[in-house]
Amino acid sequence: MSVNKIAILTSGGDAPGMNACIRAICLAAKHANIKTVGYKHGFNGLLNQEFIDLEPARVYNLIQRGGTILNSARCEKFKQAASIAKAIVHLDENNIDALIVIGGNGSFKGAAQLQNMWNKPVVGVPGTIDNDIAGTDFTIGYHTAIQTAVESIDKVKDTAEAFERIFLVEVMGREAGFIALNSAIASGCDHVLVPERFTSAGEELVKIIDKLDSRRANKKNASHIIIVTENLWPGGLAVLADSLASETGVDVRILTLGHVQRGGSPSSEDRLLATRLGTYAVQCCINDERGMMVAEQRETPMSLPLEISWKEKKALNSYTVDMLDKITLLG
Amino acid sequence: MSVNKIAILTSGGDAPGMNACIRAICLAAKHANIKTVGYKHGFNGLLNQEFIDLEPARVYNLIQRGGTILNSARCEKFKQAASIAKAIVHLDENNIDALIVIGGNGSFKGAAQLQNMWNKPVVGVPGTIDNDIAGTDFTIGYHTAIQTAVESIDKVKDTAEAFERIFLVEVMGREAGFIALNSAIASGCDHVLVPERFTSAGEELVKIIDKLDSRRANKKNASHIIIVTENLWPGGLAVLADSLASETGVDVRILTLGHVQRGGSPSSEDRLLATRLGTYAVQCCINDERGMMVAEQRETPMSLPLEISWKEKKALNSYTVDMLDKITLLG
Amino acid sequence: MSVNKIAILTSGGDAPGMNACIRAICLAAKHANIKTVGYKHGFNGLLNQEFIDLEPARVYNLIQRGGTILNSARCEKFKQAASIAKAIVHLDENNIDALIVIGGNGSFKGAAQLQNMWNKPVVGVPGTIDNDIAGTDFTIGYHTAIQTAVESIDKVKDTAEAFERIFLVEVMGREAGFIALNSAIASGCDHVLVPERFTSAGEELVKIIDKLDSRRANKKNASHIIIVTENLWPGGLAVLADSLASETGVDVRILTLGHVQRGGSPSSEDRLLATRLGTYAVQCCINDERGMMVAEQRETPMSLPLEISWKEKKALNSYTVDMLDKITLLG
Amino acid sequence: MSVNKIAILTSGGDAPGMNACIRAICLAAKHANIKTVGYKHGFNGLLNQEFIDLEPARVYNLIQRGGTILNSARCEKFKQAASIAKAIVHLDENNIDALIVIGGNGSFKGAAQLQNMWNKPVVGVPGTIDNDIAGTDFTIGYHTAIQTAVESIDKVKDTAEAFERIFLVEVMGREAGFIALNSAIASGCDHVLVPERFTSAGEELVKIIDKLDSRRANKKNASHIIIVTENLWPGGLAVLADSLASETGVDVRILTLGHVQRGGSPSSEDRLLATRLGTYAVQCCINDERGMMVAEQRETPMSLPLEISWKEKKALNSYTVDMLDKITLLG
Repeated sequence: MSVNKIAILTSGGDAPGMNACIRAICLAAKHANIKTVGYKHGFNGLLNQEFIDLEPARVYNLIQRGGTILNSARCEKFKQAASIAKAIVHLDENNIDALIVIGGNGSFKGAAQLQNMWNKPVVGVPGTIDNDIAGTDFTIGYHTAIQTAVESIDKVKDTAEAFERIFLVEVMGREAGFIALNSAIASGCDHVLVPERFTSAGEELVKIIDKLDSRRANKKNASHIIIVTENLWPGGLAVLADSLASETGVDVRILTLGHVQRGGSPSSEDRLLATRLGTYAVQCCINDERGMMVAEQRETPMSLPLEISWKEKKALNSYTVDMLDKITLLG
Repeated sequence: MSVNKIAILTSGGDAPGMNACIRAICLAAKHANIKTVGYKHGFNGLLNQEFIDLEPARVYNLIQRGGTILNSARCEKFKQAASIAKAIVHLDENNIDALIVIGGNGSFKGAAQLQNMWNKPVVGVPGTIDNDIAGTDFTIGYHTAIQTAVESIDKVKDTAEAFERIFLVEVMGREAGFIALNSAIASGCDHVLVPERFTSAGEELVKIIDKLDSRRANKKNASHIIIVTENLWPGGLAVLADSLASETGVDVRILTLGHVQRGGSPSSEDRLLATRLGTYAVQCCINDERGMMVAEQRETPMSLPLEISWKEKKALNSYTVDMLDKITLLG
Repeated sequence: MSVNKIAILTSGGDAPGMNACIRAICLAAKHANIKTVGYKHGFNGLLNQEFIDLEPARVYNLIQRGGTILNSARCEKFKQAASIAKAIVHLDENNIDALIVIGGNGSFKGAAQLQNMWNKPVVGVPGTIDNDIAGTDFTIGYHTAIQTAVESIDKVKDTAEAFERIFLVEVMGREAGFIALNSAIASGCDHVLVPERFTSAGEELVKIIDKLDSRRANKKNASHIIIVTENLWPGGLAVLADSLASETGVDVRILTLGHVQRGGSPSSEDRLLATRLGTYAVQCCINDERGMMVAEQRETPMSLPLEISWKEKKALNSYTVDMLDKITLLG
Repeated sequence: MSVNKIAILTSGGDAPGMNACIRAICLAAKHANIKTVGYKHGFNGLLNQEFIDLEPARVYNLIQRGGTILNSARCEKFKQAASIAKAIVHLDENNIDALIVIGGNGSFKGAAQLQNMWNKPVVGVPGTIDNDIAGTDFTIGYHTAIQTAVESIDKVKDTAEAFERIFLVEVMGREAGFIALNSAIASGCDHVLVPERFTSAGEELVKIIDKLDSRRANKKNASHIIIVTENLWPGGLAVLADSLASETGVDVRILTLGHVQRGGSPSSEDRLLATRLGTYAVQCCINDERGMMVAEQRETPMSLPLEISWKEKKALNSYTVDMLDKITLLG
């Protein structure tokens, strides 16, 4: 089989570096004399035949741009067989020889269902700030999201010094603690709450109070910063804030970093990762690999079955988790 | 009178550039053979005799640091004459010949009350991100706060492009719209709500809907970003979000920038402003000026009565307000 | 006279914020039902009839982009009357009712010559990182250039601490010391050389040695950073480096910041300035003002004769110059 | 053996994240009831008995600071056996039970020689922006140096767009191309020259001209950016610039990024790496490991013989090198 035209789409929550990946796919394809088109708004573009040609001129100077020029979206309809069938008709009408889906594990499920019904390669590229895809060291957008979170927390620390206060900082991560754990360590925070280690509100509250007590024994009048993964504390962060305030008598503030974490120019790490994964995805298309996602270990790309992304749960790095107590007790 | 020792304190909400100002005071004083000491935690330090010597070595490499090494605080007690009398005893015990207070108009009231009872100069330096002090073009911290807000909003715009959404972004400013107005223009936002122009929730809601309608007529499927000054919308931003969602059928998200705006390395503008005002404040002490604040117009420092800061309401720049409609209608 | 179409060009050295100004002109014109076109590569575009339509969609999300979408250039030919005559024929063929030139004083000379021969308004907007245009507080790009220089110098200071070294840092400015003076103060440097105060290599060398001696008396083993305006030291910085090395026995390094200073996303200050000046320039066109440049004092735009830009020499702020010795002696 | 006191020093070229590593060692040691002291100015501090106590309060808020509070230096004397013997006397006088050396492979040679003569553990931690230490995925400072280079190149690209020019950008790396290769890819540059692939000036010049020709065929009038490792081009970059200018007729500019690359707040990646390696180095001391360096693979620390650092040459990632042609030909 000869590949003459590759289609790309970005799906699910957007992540910095998606544009860098689109650019890499487009350039690597051009280098192999393959055309590229981009479907807009995720899988919706397949259903609505909304697409654009991706000439190299279109991706010029794109590597440093946040967001995705193809827009992203979630697409509930795409869970229905009828929608997938319609997408395949459109792909074939458009003479598409392979499809690359940049997104997270939800998007990869859609990609796998499409692959089951289509006789041409569908390749996934892990693009999500949450880093929650097993098999790959990192996902596109993760490093930038941590860097953004850390820069914000650094700023909060400046102002926090003045008063004895507790700051609860909510970061993204959906059901994974990668952003929370690593931004907490990188910004020298006092404590972190991640879903992988969360027991119950009662037990966690005791642990927080203990940690704060031991820190205050070492440094009086200091502020304390606690990083919390989104959607984790039962009832929301206001509940935790109230509990902490009544237990400690200290003023408690909540800071929700929010969508800032999804934006910004991708860090050099994410641009490099996106470029390696994007160029490799083109090779997978040429090799007619079916139902695979590209992944990376030690900066070397490889392909793995898409299903790993939802069948395996990616674990936090155990060394990092274990060292947490050593470095947050004191300074 | 000869000035041999100047005391400094930072009071009220902290602002980037306070450290740069402390450094400038310390170095300019040293240049005039004057010692400097710093009272900690605002006026509380005067009451508790909590202070540190500020040798030049202490302020080395301080110009670029956020926060304030003297800590800041609000001090309710300082409104009582007994507290002020106690502060004066402490100042005299400590052989202080002049006091420089870096803070906002609340802190300047305290400074003026102290001046009324003390026979040595008390000089105010406008340090607040809110820029709400009449008589001076800018206050220390204001430029950095806008830059921080704009960088965050730029990032939100990246991710906002993907979906049709309305983002409500809350910025600081207390009862003044300087940060909101200028960060909205500098980030190319769709609409801004400032206290100086707010009429009623009902009327403002109509204006927002009109603005969004006209923008969508020009650019379909785009996101919209609306900047809102803190504490402005009756009942809070969740109320506005609900109203907008039900009126437009569009998904509405709230982003509260929060204390991030108070932190970070001061911008070059704030470092320069802090250095000019700090060196000038030392000159005011030497000149035995009483009850004055330093101010700046067109980069030239001057001294003005402290009372201007609470008697006059600083107005938003009228040209900036008027041009808002011209540039937010379309792109 | 009714204005239906305004042309824009960017000329001379490019500056961050030129794009923000193009956007503001385009949107303010649209608001007044005026079309806009952009000539490319400065005055060359007028000669070659190279232009693009500037619809609002074209300037969408442009406020934060460095560079200029119209490209910039110097144009030697434009000093000839024949070239200007040709440009006027092209402007008239294209039904242009007014021309806005964003650039420095070289570009404003060209604009004035064109105005002398054309019966429609030519308006200048000061866009140059050098800030060397009299009559206006600031020029577009200046604040960003200082911020970029300061961020680089902050980084050099981190690494300079380790060793006793002298760093000579060359910044831009052409024949003006605005960038050098203000970036030196904002980054807490030891000394600065600006053309406005330069006497002779011999005298300046003595002053530098004296300054370094007094600083080393206060802080041993420290590094020293000296900011120098480009093209200032006779024979180049290598000559100064050699002299300093042989006089002090200390290792001397040269860092030339270069074109980095012209790039980057414009700071919030430059975006605001560019927006105020751009919208005001449209008003000048509508008012049929001839041979004027827009300027700004205390954030309020106004129009002044173009010739001010080359007839008056803009002076450094005298307070800033005078305070230099107070704050660089010690820390 | 029981470890009661660990000494730390930073040696060779400084790197962002050295402070974060010092902090991690100090806190992890404190957690194990071990004291820490820091020798100043690299191995010189061992010879001069210049050291400071490193209490947790000393490393508070240090994780985000560039440079090294222990200063760094090269130390020629340390190659002599007499100097090493003297250092051992000093270490023993000071009751030091283990020494951690943060630096590059030159510093590791010194550490190994000391280990040969001392009966207590000497542990190396790879800290250098050059990333040229085999056995570890990354060295401390490398990610920040790339990010700094990329941010500068992004800015140059903004301004480069305006004119047809060739920019030669020199980056650091000593004899390794890691910074050059990866910053070139991450900033979307046109070409890169690294020592690992350099043949001869003549051959490389032909390749550059070919590359530029093919790019200009795709995009007319564009600027071109070529990244070059320091000390690589015979005779220096001015020679290459002259050759390119005469061959192409295009204006060529040189930008040397210089020491800016060594400074700045460490990126989140470098803070995390420094914290993992620092905490692990303490464990190696406790385990009485001799002559080892800590390394990291896939975010998991391990210990390897120090001699790997000078016996093995770390290779550039082959996938990254191979993909270069695919993505730089066109956009």
